Amino acid sequence: MGPGPCNPYPEVVAAMGRPMLGHLDPEFLNLLDETCDRLRAVFQTNNALTLPISGTGSAGMEAAFVNVVKPGDEVVIGVNGLFGERMVDVAQRCGAVVTRVDAEWGSPLDPTEILAAHPNPAIIALVHAETSTGVRNDIAPIGVGKPDGALLLVDCVTSIAGIELDVDGWGVDVAYAGTQKCLGVPPGLAPLTYSDAARQRIVERPQSWYLDLSQIAAYTEGGGGARRYHHTAPISMIFALHAGLGVILDEGLRNAWERHAEAGKALQDGLEKRGFELVAPVTNRLPELTTVWVPAGVDDAFVRRALLERYGIEIGGGVGVMAGKAWRIGCMGHTARLRNVVALLAALDDVITW
Amino acid sequence: MGPGPCNPYPEVVAAMGRPMLGHLDPEFLNLLDETCDRLRAVFQTNNALTLPISGTGSAGMEAAFVNVVKPGDEVVIGVNGLFGERMVDVAQRCGAVVTRVDAEWGSPLDPTEILAAHPNPAIIALVHAETSTGVRNDIAPIGVGKPDGALLLVDCVTSIAGIELDVDGWGVDVAYAGTQKCLGVPPGLAPLTYSDAARQRIVERPQSWYLDLSQIAAYTEGGGGARRYHHTAPISMIFALHAGLGVILDEGLRNAWERHAEAGKALQDGLEKRGFELVAPVTNRLPELTTVWVPAGVDDAFVRRALLERYGIEIGGGVGVMAGKAWRIGCMGHTARLRNVVALLAALDDVITW
Repeated sequence: MGPGPCNPYPEVVAAMGRPMLGHLDPEFLNLLDETCDRLRAVFQTNNALTLPISGTGSAGMEAAFVNVVKPGDEVVIGVNGLFGERMVDVAQRCGAVVTRVDAEWGSPLDPTEILAAHPNPAIIALVHAETSTGVRNDIAPIGVGKPDGALLLVDCVTSIAGIELDVDGWGVDVAYAGTQKCLGVPPGLAPLTYSDAARQRIVERPQSWYLDLSQIAAYTEGGGGARRYHHTAPISMIFALHAGLGVILDEGLRNAWERHAEAGKALQDGLEKRGFELVAPVTNRLPELTTVWVPAGVDDAFVRRALLERYGIEIGGGVGVMAGKAWRIGCMGHTARLRNVVALLAALDDVITW
Repeated sequence: MGPGPCNPYPEVVAAMGRPMLGHLDPEFLNLLDETCDRLRAVFQTNNALTLPISGTGSAGMEAAFVNVVKPGDEVVIGVNGLFGERMVDVAQRCGAVVTRVDAEWGSPLDPTEILAAHPNPAIIALVHAETSTGVRNDIAPIGVGKPDGALLLVDCVTSIAGIELDVDGWGVDVAYAGTQKCLGVPPGLAPLTYSDAARQRIVERPQSWYLDLSQIAAYTEGGGGARRYHHTAPISMIFALHAGLGVILDEGLRNAWERHAEAGKALQDGLEKRGFELVAPVTNRLPELTTVWVPAGVDDAFVRRALLERYGIEIGGGVGVMAGKAWRIGCMGHTARLRNVVALLAALDDVITW
């Protein structure tokens, strides 16, 4: 129950053990195509360029930026947590001139401020679900209000399959995610989608060879049926992602959101009933990642160690300005079950003496 | 029996299904430390900075270059196949001024030519085992002869655990590998090692955030016991790598080389006995990856499809100048068994009518 990785779905664990296939085997290529279709369903997009990047969520972030940022490009980035900060670092290494729009950690970003930050940015970027603070940032108003010519780039690592996400409906041009949160798959892949508008802005020969989207697409999409080898696809992890997406789409995407909502609400209600104070405001509180202040007089490290050693339950510590002051509790993927919520609450009752 | 991925060891398949652990869980961190120790054993190095990069072999190549190349650095690269070509592309994207030393595809590089190519290069780089041609390039003479101040950077993707590799003994400064060849693990990680000399040359804030070695090392090595989170480690794949390395070290590294040698020799002898002509010269022929010319009058695509559809045996087609003209047959990892060799030879007897 940390901030990810979650427990993978049983079907995912089984899929990882499937007999190996070559990355050019027609059977594997069919499965890869199906995986990309399933990704379109959970992103809610029709983007042709939708695929898993061969690295963890942060590789997705780098792939998102490195393929469209030209040196000197004006990029507006909303920052209200660790992953917004990371976006600034990644964009700058690609040569972007970054305009930051900050909000306090634990508070949501103000869409109006973001839209007012620059008259004609090349890119506006922000995190949908901040894993460091448990805060949801609103995306739709930025898609509506953004100037022509600005691409909207969104980190969906912790939102995908856990809360409503509507890439096409909200006007998102570039979105990336991770597999180890609400998708219920081990870490190791980064789903990525690029709109046609974003695709037209892809730079020639980006500074990263490994994350060069044009070359990767020549393999994942083929051209006239031919697949051009770029790098060896991480076969077993793609088996896993294919299976995890299958579980979610069989359940129904809205039902999966609902399950995350229910588990998160049960946890948050249970914590408040016990006197804990939650970090994120109720209007922008993520169900899949709950942040809670460590009560005065309670030993952060002792509690986390006791939960892990006595009960086999992991919860996450705070990061950045919240290090040592807050916990981060995940209800994601296969972990988003009421049985886990009641077990954690009972274990906390046992470990903490108020 | 393609040029990788190989079949994973059964112990590896089992390890991927281990219950998930968090990337900061002490149990996982112990396993990660053990994985790095085992990597030192197969690389034959004492380098402190030895770890798995969270991407496939090509991510290892990019991590190898991007952390030590400064714009304008003189880099000598030996090119006698696809992966030497890739090195040129990757190094140039990092800002290197590349001096190429070419040999024909199918022939080994000449160490003397490489040493004579530039009086004081920052880096000399080449591929140990060219997966595109089945040729082994000699590394030791370059380690002995290289000028002071030049780092020796070697691609060991297809050599690690399959043929002799002696990073410290040969004076290699930077080496990277892949998991899906002779290590017998699915694709998805890139073992990497940096000597102390290479480490001292690590650039500040490399253009890739994801592959920033200093930040990654702050997680894998910790500092004073503390591990600083960089990105979420691909847990299940690290379980797999840990298990695959365990299989090889239990067998004995030299025994694993010997098994690859025996399987490769049996295949190559069997092919020559049937009248096939091998591509690589006997002096520099890889046992783990055999390249063979498609005989005149034989239909490349038909044979490969028939092997796959009738016998479930994959072999690889040629790439680059050998596309349509040669096959690439892997005997790597768990696939390096005599039973697979005799099955393939018998299937070829059935499929090809001379």
